[in-house]
Amino acid sequence: MPGTVEPRISRGLRDLLPDQMLARQSMVDTIRRVYELYGFVPLATPAIEYLDVLSGSAGQEAQQSIFRVSNPEGEALGLRFDLTVPLARVIAQYADLPRPFRRYQVSPVWRADKPDKGRFREFTQFDLDSVGTESEIADTEILAGMADTLDALNVGRYLVRFSSRAMLNLLLDFAEIEHGQSVDVFRVLDKLDKAGPEKVRLELMEGYKDESGDTIRGLGLARAQVDRIEQFLAVKADSRKEVIAQLRQLFKGLEHAPAQIDVVERISNHLYALHYGDDRIALDLSIARGLAYYTGPVFEAILLDAPQFGSVFGGGRYDNLVMRFLGEAIPAVGASIGVDRLLAALAYLNRVDKRKATARVLVTHMDPALTNDYLQITWELRRAGIPTELYIGTAKGPGKQLKYADQYEIPLAILYGTNEKQQGVVTVKNMAVGRAKSGQLGDRSAWIAQRPGQTTIPRDKLVDGIRGLLAETE
Amino acid sequence: MPGTVEPRISRGLRDLLPDQMLARQSMVDTIRRVYELYGFVPLATPAIEYLDVLSGSAGQEAQQSIFRVSNPEGEALGLRFDLTVPLARVIAQYADLPRPFRRYQVSPVWRADKPDKGRFREFTQFDLDSVGTESEIADTEILAGMADTLDALNVGRYLVRFSSRAMLNLLLDFAEIEHGQSVDVFRVLDKLDKAGPEKVRLELMEGYKDESGDTIRGLGLARAQVDRIEQFLAVKADSRKEVIAQLRQLFKGLEHAPAQIDVVERISNHLYALHYGDDRIALDLSIARGLAYYTGPVFEAILLDAPQFGSVFGGGRYDNLVMRFLGEAIPAVGASIGVDRLLAALAYLNRVDKRKATARVLVTHMDPALTNDYLQITWELRRAGIPTELYIGTAKGPGKQLKYADQYEIPLAILYGTNEKQQGVVTVKNMAVGRAKSGQLGDRSAWIAQRPGQTTIPRDKLVDGIRGLLAETE
Repeated sequence: MPGTVEPRISRGLRDLLPDQMLARQSMVDTIRRVYELYGFVPLATPAIEYLDVLSGSAGQEAQQSIFRVSNPEGEALGLRFDLTVPLARVIAQYADLPRPFRRYQVSPVWRADKPDKGRFREFTQFDLDSVGTESEIADTEILAGMADTLDALNVGRYLVRFSSRAMLNLLLDFAEIEHGQSVDVFRVLDKLDKAGPEKVRLELMEGYKDESGDTIRGLGLARAQVDRIEQFLAVKADSRKEVIAQLRQLFKGLEHAPAQIDVVERISNHLYALHYGDDRIALDLSIARGLAYYTGPVFEAILLDAPQFGSVFGGGRYDNLVMRFLGEAIPAVGASIGVDRLLAALAYLNRVDKRKATARVLVTHMDPALTNDYLQITWELRRAGIPTELYIGTAKGPGKQLKYADQYEIPLAILYGTNEKQQGVVTVKNMAVGRAKSGQLGDRSAWIAQRPGQTTIPRDKLVDGIRGLLAETE
Repeated sequence: MPGTVEPRISRGLRDLLPDQMLARQSMVDTIRRVYELYGFVPLATPAIEYLDVLSGSAGQEAQQSIFRVSNPEGEALGLRFDLTVPLARVIAQYADLPRPFRRYQVSPVWRADKPDKGRFREFTQFDLDSVGTESEIADTEILAGMADTLDALNVGRYLVRFSSRAMLNLLLDFAEIEHGQSVDVFRVLDKLDKAGPEKVRLELMEGYKDESGDTIRGLGLARAQVDRIEQFLAVKADSRKEVIAQLRQLFKGLEHAPAQIDVVERISNHLYALHYGDDRIALDLSIARGLAYYTGPVFEAILLDAPQFGSVFGGGRYDNLVMRFLGEAIPAVGASIGVDRLLAALAYLNRVDKRKATARVLVTHMDPALTNDYLQITWELRRAGIPTELYIGTAKGPGKQLKYADQYEIPLAILYGTNEKQQGVVTVKNMAVGRAKSGQLGDRSAWIAQRPGQTTIPRDKLVDGIRGLLAETE
């Protein structure tokens, strides 16, 4: 149409329509509830930060993906690409925050990456961090909170896995690898899940050509070194206790090993004391986590019935959070939930809130002369805390109004005409009954006429009657 | 310090530290609860929109205040400056949304205005709209929802005021003003609250010089016309019913007046039927609302104990929402809450959630040998749904750990040492007792030593004991 603007959004962006938002809100509210139970407090920071505040702390990839923003003063600004950099700025900027500062933040972040299936340029992160403490209890609580969150979200079988950057450093000594090579080695090891052990072995040594013919350059390690890495990766057991025993055996020649392994063991023992058994939280040495800045324990979580979604929760201990701002190290430990990825996994598992409406009752509007009665009925139900919608669309007859309730899965519909008014009753239709039956018979209008699932309740017992019927539908 | 980045944010932006966020979240959750009770459903849209989508619908002022954003494709993008434009785009873009589409959205918006006290460049709006219905019930529900929201937020005395653009159009006929002048006349009338009747009268006629010597140009109306405007503005009464009777009298010579006044009267009568009396919702003809796009009823709400904050809630009926996209008019009615302004007003009235922590119990950590006991106690309380924090800071003694609980207003602190363990009890300190007393005596360390507000509960009755003590502190 000439003169009109095409309604559209730029690539990598998306709208969340009500059914998607209801599922997401329900998930975010659940996570919030878990972490508030742990005593974490919320923080909000502006979407727009100075470019020099955003720059430097993250990898080059993140740098290049910053959306630039301009303001009237012409300052160099950008949209935040994670919630860790704003946390670091806040810690550096406000001297009187509590120590430890245990905050959560659930906010959108922006990255101008190449969009892909399930990969958006605006997405939501739920981050939690304990800043200013070296206590292993902080690490323990992040791990326990991950498990509690996944339980509260009813994700089914899951496994929280942890390891420690310290174990990987011991591995460098054990395999006689230069510490200067550590970032490259860990980056390659981090591909184990995706690329498999054979390709990782080749990349650690002489490299290889991948399926598309591209050359993957090798790191040039010697066979003996890679053998030792594989010895380390072979440390596996059904219990954290047994993994720790094997680690002590493997690293028995290294001077610093006992103290470092003690740290991991204390976390494991704290978790046992809290009833987090080996079935929920595992010590898994194959975890490296890509980011170079982790300095101690590292965590992730996978859904055992939806492993293809990868890690839905990840984090670890890091010390250099505010170095860039204050020139000093502050110990911190945290984790981040990819809200969109976790939600996609939950949807795949059929475990999301699937409401399409907030209303539990639709009051149909059939007789304009009774409008104030409909308003009164609606008002009584809302007063009683029952989410209720009064039909205000253009459809006049009951058929289309009931179809509206059906379409948005509102469980109950109220029908009220002069007959009901004279008799002092309200007719209530259980929409689920009509829906189930019409599917079998293929003729829904016949079923509406026969009034399946319809019942009457006394007008003066409206709230109790509706409460009872709602309880039946759940 | 050389080489470090100064931690700072750009002008007009701000962080919300935990105490501010707890107050805001509590407020937003309350508003959400009210509107979900009404059957409104949530929507989310990306922060970034195409510039041509953002442009054109709002006034010039809003246009100039758009934060420009660039993406790798070099498209012309900007941050949304309100939630109405994205709603219009969504309505135009998705053909199968329900009609009416009754959505709420609570999201930040960005305007590169000149920052001022209480005026930020990123702020949060809570919008609700019913799109696709001409029903006066939709208008009624927005008004009723405004009142319910203010009640739920416990704001004290308030007044929801409404009028209608149709009444102002009748006024144009009554005062024989060209309809082409309507936007200017309404803009001037909208200043009544701020500028007062004398200046408004002058601006309608020949204009005047303001305090700073600037000339305020007049609209050039004749004295007889302004007299009629003042007759209209003099229509005031304690009841909506009486205002309507006076309106019918004033406009009795105008052909279209009865039908238009009927609309306002039906809304008023619906509200009476729902028990919204004249004390909470008033028909007030002085309301014009600045925006040119309102076409029917207009609403606002003021807090009677904090009138200096102005309207904390405003909206109305508008038809041209999607005209720019689809070339057709779709009727809609909605309202917007300035979350930050309302929160500031509530803070002024001392009616915000003033928690500084989410935790209700602090488990102190005094004896490292008992760490697993502390974890176990913490875990039992969290399991029972009691938000609990285990102290993991660097302070060793009880004094500083209790000070931490005091500082963040955590009501109860648990003290547990080998004595307690041997006796099978837990010592609990009610922090409020120490706080109240120390203020009177000026020597808090003495009071901590004397252990005021301390009690012991059996270790095996931990949860019940803490529940009882928490009930006492509330």
